[in-house]
Parts: sequence; C-alpha cells; structure tokens
Amino acid sequence: MEIFYSNDIRGDVCFLDQEESGHCVRVLRHRSGDHICVIDGEGTFYDCTLLDDSPKAASARIDGVQRCWGAHRYNLTMAVCPTKNIDRFEWFAEKATELGVDVIAPVIGEHSERKVLKTDRIRKILLSATKQSLKGAIPQISEPESVSAFIRAHRDADELKLIAYCFEEEDAPRISIKDALAGETPAGTAPADPASGQPARPIVILIGPEGDFSRAEASLALECGFRPIHLGESRLRTETAALTAVEAVYFHYM
Amino acid sequence: MEIFYSNDIRGDVCFLDQEESGHCVRVLRHRSGDHICVIDGEGTFYDCTLLDDSPKAASARIDGVQRCWGAHRYNLTMAVCPTKNIDRFEWFAEKATELGVDVIAPVIGEHSERKVLKTDRIRKILLSATKQSLKGAIPQISEPESVSAFIRAHRDADELKLIAYCFEEEDAPRISIKDALAGETPAGTAPADPASGQPARPIVILIGPEGDFSRAEASLALECGFRPIHLGESRLRTETAALTAVEAVYFHYM
Repeated sequence: MEIFYSNDIRGDVCFLDQEESGHCVRVLRHRSGDHICVIDGEGTFYDCTLLDDSPKAASARIDGVQRCWGAHRYNLTMAVCPTKNIDRFEWFAEKATELGVDVIAPVIGEHSERKVLKTDRIRKILLSATKQSLKGAIPQISEPESVSAFIRAHRDADELKLIAYCFEEEDAPRISIKDALAGETPAGTAPADPASGQPARPIVILIGPEGDFSRAEASLALECGFRPIHLGESRLRTETAALTAVEAVYFHYM
Repeated sequence: MEIFYSNDIRGDVCFLDQEESGHCVRVLRHRSGDHICVIDGEGTFYDCTLLDDSPKAASARIDGVQRCWGAHRYNLTMAVCPTKNIDRFEWFAEKATELGVDVIAPVIGEHSERKVLKTDRIRKILLSATKQSLKGAIPQISEPESVSAFIRAHRDADELKLIAYCFEEEDAPRISIKDALAGETPAGTAPADPASGQPARPIVILIGPEGDFSRAEASLALECGFRPIHLGESRLRTETAALTAVEAVYFHYM
C-alpha cells in the first residue's frame, strides 16, 4: 500500500505538495479517478479519489477518514545525543519510527563529538518510515539544544523521566529500564486507557553520546526529577542504546 | 579498551594472525611488554603481555583468564531471511551481536528476493561488534540454507521454536513473542541457572523475507513444532522485526 502525505487539507480535499504530486503522478502514474491513500502526518488516514492529476499540484477528494491510524499506546520522547557517524543516528530515527515514537529531540552533551545536526534530512527519513510502516502520525523532530537546556525545560513536567548513563552515582543507584517502566504502570496496560485507571503520563528518555553524560549533566538530571536507569548487561553503542529504550517501551505496552 | 582476537592459543601463549598482528603492532603501535586484551571468540578473555611484536605474527603471554566474559543468560539462534538491501541484514547482525545472540542462520524463503549471501563480510562484522561490545564469544554464522531445510533440521530438537509471520492460520492463532517467552520461563529468570529450576532450552526464532513466509513454509514450521508469534502492532521491516525479536529475548531475561 502506497501512502501519500498532505499537510494541506481543506474541507474534503487533500492537496499534495510538489514532491508528493510528482511521486503520485509521474512515478506511480496515478490518474484522476484512482483510489489513493493519504495521511496528514498528525495521525489521520484518508481514503481518497484523485481529482487533479497534475504532477506538480495533485489533489484528491476524501471518501473516508480513520483517526489514530497505526497509533501506539504510549507517548514517548527520545532525547538522544547525535552520533559522530550521522548514519547511525539516522538509522535510529528510522527504526524508532517503525516501532513508534512521538518526539525525537537531538541533544548535545558536554562530551558530544558532534555538536551540530541538520534536521532536514532526518525529517525526510521520518516521513518515509512513517509511510512505510503504515502510521498516520509522523514523529516530531526538534531543533538541537544542549542536554542541560533539555533537562531544565522538563524540570516541572509531569512525565516519567528517565536518564541512561553508564556510571554509578552513590546516592542514586540505577534500576533497569524494565523495572522503571513497571513501576509506572503494570506491563501490558495502555497508559491512555481509562479502564487501566492510570493517568497518561508521557515518557521521556535521555540517551547520552559516545563519551556518556558528564557527572554535572547526570546531577542536574537527578535534581530535575529524572530517574537513573541502565539498559541491561550488554555494552551498547549510542544508537543501539536509544533503540533498545524504544523497544523497552514498545514491549512494556505490548 | 581495545580487544584482539586469537584462534590459536597454545599453553599460556596467544598467537595473533596477520590481520590482528598488524592492527596491534602497526596501527596501535604496541611493543613487547605492553599489556593487551585477547578473546578466543568462544567466550574466554585473556589478560596478556605482548611477547613478540612482529607486525605479521605477534604473540602474547597469558597472565589472567576470565571465562564466559560478557556472556548473556540465554541461548538464541536467529534464522533470518537476508534482506534485498544487504546493508540492512548487516546492520541487524551488528546490533544482534551487541545485544547478545549465539547463532545467526541466514535462510532463504520461497518469497525471498535475495537468494545468495556471502558470509565472509558478515563474519567480519560479527568479530568487530563482538570486540566493540566487550564480549568473549563471537556469534556463529551458518551458511545459507532454505527455510524448509532449516525447519526440518530442527524438527526433533528440544528448543523453544518460534516463527513470526504476518498472516493468520485458522488452526494456530499467533501469540505475542512476549507471551511466548513468558510461557517458557518466568521473566527475569536465567534459563541456564540451576536455581531457577528450569532446563536450559535454547531459543530459535524464524523471521521471514520482505514478502513474508509462504503458507507452505508456515505449515511445515507448525508441523515441526514451531509456535506462531507476532511482534506487536507495528509493521516492521524484516531487519527491524529480527532485531525486535532479539530485544524481546534480551528484555525477557533482563
């Protein structure tokens, strides 16, 4: 099933931008009257009939609507330090999207080798992976900010806030991510499901750079309500650690 | 920590092959008398002192031995259909090694687009990921065989055998991989741990190609004692599905 994306929906008509129109009309050779599938990137899926098969500005009539299409049962923000080799971060972004993630926040730590990240390329990967994995909502990617700015911005938020680092702080022993999630909601429950009796607390997980978080960043996180976690006994690369955290949430709510 | 690999250990001396010797002596400029770390690829770690710093045939004296170094608490064979784009399969091999896997068995399904796979390149990736993730045992990779040959070879084996496909067979409803693992041993127990009272059944998981398993392959698997599973609600690419299965086992025994 081929999915198109439109961020311009007026009444019962979806307007495709130049890139999506070209893909629909020039590459896949759809013609007026063809059935096409469109997402709005915010969670809604539209069954459509192509009206205008212009290869630069196609449009389609909406025949049916499905909200929360391909949605997952949690709200997850992954704040991850971009890897030195950018392919590895891009790979994480693709895989996290397939599993289900809401926000990817690139954060720059004191020990980060990579201090800049262009989000345009990541945005394309997120769109492509969203379509490929049949989801209606594209994960958001925020502009890079420092680890400490990210932590401070979440100080007062009512969220399950977790930080994964590889050392031990005397006063704050790390628990496994599995136990941290189990302490929040019983395994298998949907946080947004009223039947579970649980409030829908969003989850925020911080993953450091190749050189780990600094002690100062870890202390600030603990002060701001982050819980220190580990990801098991294996020594994982940054991008594998980040994906493993997404998998932990995915399995917890399976 | 830099790790070297030797498959030639005699008495208390490790002999490095030409590639490892070059890396040790020419690239990292180790000299006789330096402390180096060596694994045998079968699970044992050696603390060594470099004796001969020949860049083609270095050798080192063993000062200390650690068995089961970086070992995981399960025995897992992943039988996975290689992806059309080989990078994706290689990526899976690297990530599975970081988490912990024992055997990677490339299998060719009726719907596989890729019918051949050279294992030499994968073998190098496995060695590199094993060293990088500080493990003593390199996962084995078997030569490619057909899905049906693999299934038949496991017919009589006393293993937890799981097959992930995307359709439903009327007589054999799929359960989640999480429930399949929980039905075998309680979460968090070590299968090889005598205290848990559980026998150490190896786990074998079959993951199909982009076009899924054929109905005939699925039926043969069920006849041969494989249990049909799903990997949750997300639609995952082949390599993501394969890694997600490894993550499920990793979390189950966490």
